Amino acid sequence: MGSIVEELESTLGREKVSTDETMLAWYAVDQAPVLDYQLPIAVVFAESVMDVQAVVRCCADMGVSVVARGAGTGVSGGAHASRNSVVLSLERMNRILDLNPDDETAVVEPGVINAVLNEAAAAHGLMYAPDPASFRTSTIGGNVATNAGGLRCAKYGVTRDSVLALDVVLADGSLIHTGHQTFKGVAGYDLTGLFVGSEGTLGIVVGVTVRLKYLPRDVHTIAAFYPDFRLAASGVLAVGRARVQPAIMELLDGGTLAQLDGIHGSDLSSRGRSLLLIQTDGFGAAAEADVVRTVLAAGGALVTTESSAEAEQLVELRRNSRGVEVDDEYRVGEDVAVPRSRLVDYVSALEAMAAAHGVNLKVVAHAGDGNLHPTFWVDRLDNAVDEGAMNRLNLALDASIAAALEMGGTITGEHGIGQYKLRWLGLEQPEPVRELQRRIKELFDPAGILNPGKAI
Amino acid sequence: MGSIVEELESTLGREKVSTDETMLAWYAVDQAPVLDYQLPIAVVFAESVMDVQAVVRCCADMGVSVVARGAGTGVSGGAHASRNSVVLSLERMNRILDLNPDDETAVVEPGVINAVLNEAAAAHGLMYAPDPASFRTSTIGGNVATNAGGLRCAKYGVTRDSVLALDVVLADGSLIHTGHQTFKGVAGYDLTGLFVGSEGTLGIVVGVTVRLKYLPRDVHTIAAFYPDFRLAASGVLAVGRARVQPAIMELLDGGTLAQLDGIHGSDLSSRGRSLLLIQTDGFGAAAEADVVRTVLAAGGALVTTESSAEAEQLVELRRNSRGVEVDDEYRVGEDVAVPRSRLVDYVSALEAMAAAHGVNLKVVAHAGDGNLHPTFWVDRLDNAVDEGAMNRLNLALDASIAAALEMGGTITGEHGIGQYKLRWLGLEQPEPVRELQRRIKELFDPAGILNPGKAI
Ligand SMILES: Cc1cc2nc3c(=O)[nH]c(=O)nc-3n(C[C@H](O)[C@H](O)[C@H](O)COP(=O)(O)OP(=O)(O)OC[C@H]3O[C@@H](n4cnc5c(N)ncnc54)[C@H](O)[C@@H]3O)c2cc1C
Ligand SMILES: Cc1cc2nc3c(=O)[nH]c(=O)nc-3n(C[C@H](O)[C@H](O)[C@H](O)COP(=O)(O)OP(=O)(O)OC[C@H]3O[C@@H](n4cnc5c(N)ncnc54)[C@H](O)[C@@H]3O)c2cc1C
Repeated sequence: MGSIVEELESTLGREKVSTDETMLAWYAVDQAPVLDYQLPIAVVFAESVMDVQAVVRCCADMGVSVVARGAGTGVSGGAHASRNSVVLSLERMNRILDLNPDDETAVVEPGVINAVLNEAAAAHGLMYAPDPASFRTSTIGGNVATNAGGLRCAKYGVTRDSVLALDVVLADGSLIHTGHQTFKGVAGYDLTGLFVGSEGTLGIVVGVTVRLKYLPRDVHTIAAFYPDFRLAASGVLAVGRARVQPAIMELLDGGTLAQLDGIHGSDLSSRGRSLLLIQTDGFGAAAEADVVRTVLAAGGALVTTESSAEAEQLVELRRNSRGVEVDDEYRVGEDVAVPRSRLVDYVSALEAMAAAHGVNLKVVAHAGDGNLHPTFWVDRLDNAVDEGAMNRLNLALDASIAAALEMGGTITGEHGIGQYKLRWLGLEQPEPVRELQRRIKELFDPAGILNPGKAI
Repeated sequence: MGSIVEELESTLGREKVSTDETMLAWYAVDQAPVLDYQLPIAVVFAESVMDVQAVVRCCADMGVSVVARGAGTGVSGGAHASRNSVVLSLERMNRILDLNPDDETAVVEPGVINAVLNEAAAAHGLMYAPDPASFRTSTIGGNVATNAGGLRCAKYGVTRDSVLALDVVLADGSLIHTGHQTFKGVAGYDLTGLFVGSEGTLGIVVGVTVRLKYLPRDVHTIAAFYPDFRLAASGVLAVGRARVQPAIMELLDGGTLAQLDGIHGSDLSSRGRSLLLIQTDGFGAAAEADVVRTVLAAGGALVTTESSAEAEQLVELRRNSRGVEVDDEYRVGEDVAVPRSRLVDYVSALEAMAAAHGVNLKVVAHAGDGNLHPTFWVDRLDNAVDEGAMNRLNLALDASIAAALEMGGTITGEHGIGQYKLRWLGLEQPEPVRELQRRIKELFDPAGILNPGKAI
C-alpha cells in the first residue's frame, strides 16, 4: 500500500486530490478561532457518493481521519482539520437532484448552496425555510451537519424541521438511507435526527431530502428604534404577548448599529441605541404588522411607517451584520440562547460584563428564538501578543456562558459545539449525558476517524 | 429477595401495585390487534420520578420486562404487555409542573392528558400544537413515545417539533435530562429526538418540556363535498398548488361518511361520496379560506358558504371518526403515508384492493401530510372462526402496505410500529438500517428489559 495521498489519487484520480500548500492552508480552518492548528494531509473533492465511499474506505484502512467540509462558513471550528486528517470537501456535489412542486420536497446533494436551492424553489412558489445569515455561501450539507438556524426560524423551524431523509456514508464506507420521503413517518428510531447536528462525527451526509414551505405572498417589514437595548429586548416580549408570530424578529444593539454605519455610511446610531427588525409574512402579514406597530410604539419605540422600503434594506444589512471579520484570539462571536422571558435580563448582564472586563461588545440576536450572538473583542497590539487582553476577553466569554446557563439557557443555539465550544460543554451537560453520546459515537465510528475531537 | 410483586409492594407501597385479574386484563392491551396475548405480572401506578426509578431498578434486578403505558390509546400494540412483564402506568403522574406564558413553554409530567395541557395553555392564548384525534384521552408521554401526529400537524408540525427537552429514566434506573429549555439548542447529539418515537424501548419518559404556539385568533372552516374520492384527493393538491397552508386538511371517503351517518343520523352520504374538510387559521384565515373555496369549487366540489357552523361540527365529527371499534383480527386500521403527489393514485389503488380481495374499506386521511388511515374489515361469523375472511383481510392489508411503499411512502405516518407493524418493517427498512437501530437499543438497554419486541 502506498501513502494515503497515493491511494486517494489512484482511486479517485488526481484532479480530485490536492496537496497544494495554499489549498491545504485554505482548507485547514473554517471561520472560527483556531485552538489547535493542523494542516490536512490532503484535500479531496468528492464528485459522487462513490467518491465519498472510496475516501472513507481509504482513510479507514490507513487510520487517517476524515473532516467533512461544506463551504467552511462554520464558526465553531467543526470543519477545522484534525491531526493526521484528510479534508473531504463536498462542494462539487452540488446538484439539485429532484424538486417536486406537488410533493413540496426536494432531493439535493450536500454541496448545494442554501440560496441556490431557495432560488430553484422560488420558481414554484416554494422556499427552503432555514436561512442562516450565511445562506448565500453555506451548503445544505453543512446546514444539516450543524442543524443551522437562521432569521425566519422562529416561525418556520430550524434545519431539523425541514429535513425528511438523509443518505449517509458511515465510517466503514457503507451507505445508508434514513427517514422518509413523506412529510410524516415514525418507522423505527429517528436516525435522521441523530445525524442532523452531528457535525460530521457520525457519518458523511451525501444526500438530503427536504420539505419545502410556501413562499409567503405578502411580507411586511417593521423597523423599531429604541433609546436603549433593554427596552428593545422587552419589545420582543411585547410582540409575543400580543400572540403574533413574526417570521423574522432580529435585535441589534448600539455597537452593531455603529458598525453598520461605519461600513455602509448609514445614520442608524443617530436614530436610536438599538433596533428591532420585524417581518410578518403570509396572508395575514398586513394585519399582523399593524398589531406589531401598535405594540412596539406603546413600548417606547420609534416605529417606521407602513410599507417601509428602508426597513427591508435594514433586514438585508442585518443578514450581513456579521461583517467580514473572522474570529480569532482577540475577537469571538458567541451563540447562546436563553428562555425568552430572560432576554431583557440577559442583555443587561452582557452589557455589565463587557464593562466589568473592559472588552468591546456588539450583539445581534435572532430574538424570536431567544438566540443571541454577542461578539466580544479587544483591541490588538500591532507587533506583540497581548496576553492581558486575551485574558480579559476569555473572562468575558466565560461570564457570558455562565450567565446564559444560569438563566436556563444553552451555550449554542445554532452554531454547534465544533472544536471551540468544547470547553463549555461540560457546564451544560452532565457526565452521564456526555458519556451516552460518546457511546453513540463509538457505535457509529469505533475507530474514531470521523472528525475526531469535535461536537461532543 | 421475594417475588417481583413483593419487591414492588415493599418498595412502592401496596396502593401503587395491582395484581387484580380484571386490572391485569385491562392493562394487558392497548387498542391494536393482539398477536401474542400476555397478561402482565402486575400493573404499577407510578406517582413520582423516584417511583419510576424504583420500578425499573426492581425489574432490572429480577430480569422482568417493563412496558410503559400512558392512556393505552395506541393502535399499534406498543403498550401490549410482553411475556414476563410489569406494566408501568404513568397516568397518575399528571401534573403540569410549569407553564410560562412569556417563555411560551410548559413542563409536564408524562401522564398529563393532551387536552388538559391545551386547556391550560388556552388560558394564556397558547396551544400545544400536536392534536391526535385521541387528544381528549391520550397522554403527553404516550404522544412523545409515539411521536404522535394529528389534525393540525401539516401546518404546526408533529410532536417532535414541539418537544424541547425530556427527563428520561434509563434501563438501569438512572435519570437523565436531554435537550434544552430554549426554542433552539444544538449542543451535542439530539438525544431528545432519539427518545421521541422510541415507544418505550429506550427509556421511560418522566418529564416533558414543550414549546407552545399561539392560539389562532381567527379560524375558518370549509366543507367540500365531492362526487368521488379521487376528485376529493385531487382537491388537496389544488390547495397546495395555490400555496395556501391550511391548519387542517382532512379527507373522508364514502365509507366514513356512511358510518358517521349511521352513528349521528346525519345525511352526509346523500350530499357526496367524499368530503374534504379544511380549516385555515391565524390573521390571514379569511383570505386563505377565500382562495381555498375558489380552488375547490373549480375542482368540482360543492363547497359550504362562508362561516359555516356545519363545517365546524364536521371537524368535530371527524375527530371522532375512528368510532368506538377496537381493532382485532377482523378489522385493522392502517396508517400509511405517501408523497402528496401520489394521493390520488393511492386512494384509487385502495379502492381497487378492497374490491379485489372482497373486504370492506373506509378511509380518513390527514391529507395535508399525505397520511392515510384506511380501515379494512371483514364481516365476522357469529360462532366460528373465519380463516378465509381473515386471510382476505391480511391480503388486502399487505397489498395496501406494498402499494404505499411502491409509491415512496411509509408504513406508519404517526401510529408507530409497536408490535403489530413489525411484520412490514423489513419491507421499508433494509437490514443495515435495522441493525443500527438494534445496536442503539442494545446500547441503551443491554438486558433488553424495556418494552421488548416492539418498535424496531
Ligand atoms: C456570515 C455568517 C453568518 C452566519 N449565520 C448563521 C446563522 O444565521 N445561523 C446559523 O445556524 N449559522 C450561521 N453561520 C454559521 C455557518 O454558516 C453554519 O454553521 C453553516 O450551516 C455551515 O455550513 P457550511 O457549508 O459552511 O459547513 P462547514 O463550515 O464546511 O462545516 C460545518 C460542520 O459541518 C460538517 N459538515 C459539513 N458538510 C458535511 C457533510 N456533507 N456531511 C457531514 N458533515 C458535514 C463539518 O465537518 C463541520 O463540522 C454563519 C456563518 C457566517 C460566516
Ligand atoms: C380514537 C383514536 C384516535 C387516534 N388518533 C390519532 C392521531 O390523530 N394521531 C396519532 O398520532 N395517533 C392517534 N391515535 C393513536 C394514539 O392515540 C397515539 O399513539 C397516542 O400518542 C398514544 O398515547 P397514550 O397515552 O394512549 O399511549 P399508550 O397507548 O399508553 O402508549 C403508546 C406507546 O408509548 C409508550 N409509552 C407511553 N407512555 C410512555 C412514557 N411515559 N415513556 C416511555 N414510553 C411510553 C408505550 O409503551 C407504547 O409503546 C389515535 C388513537 C385512537 C384510539
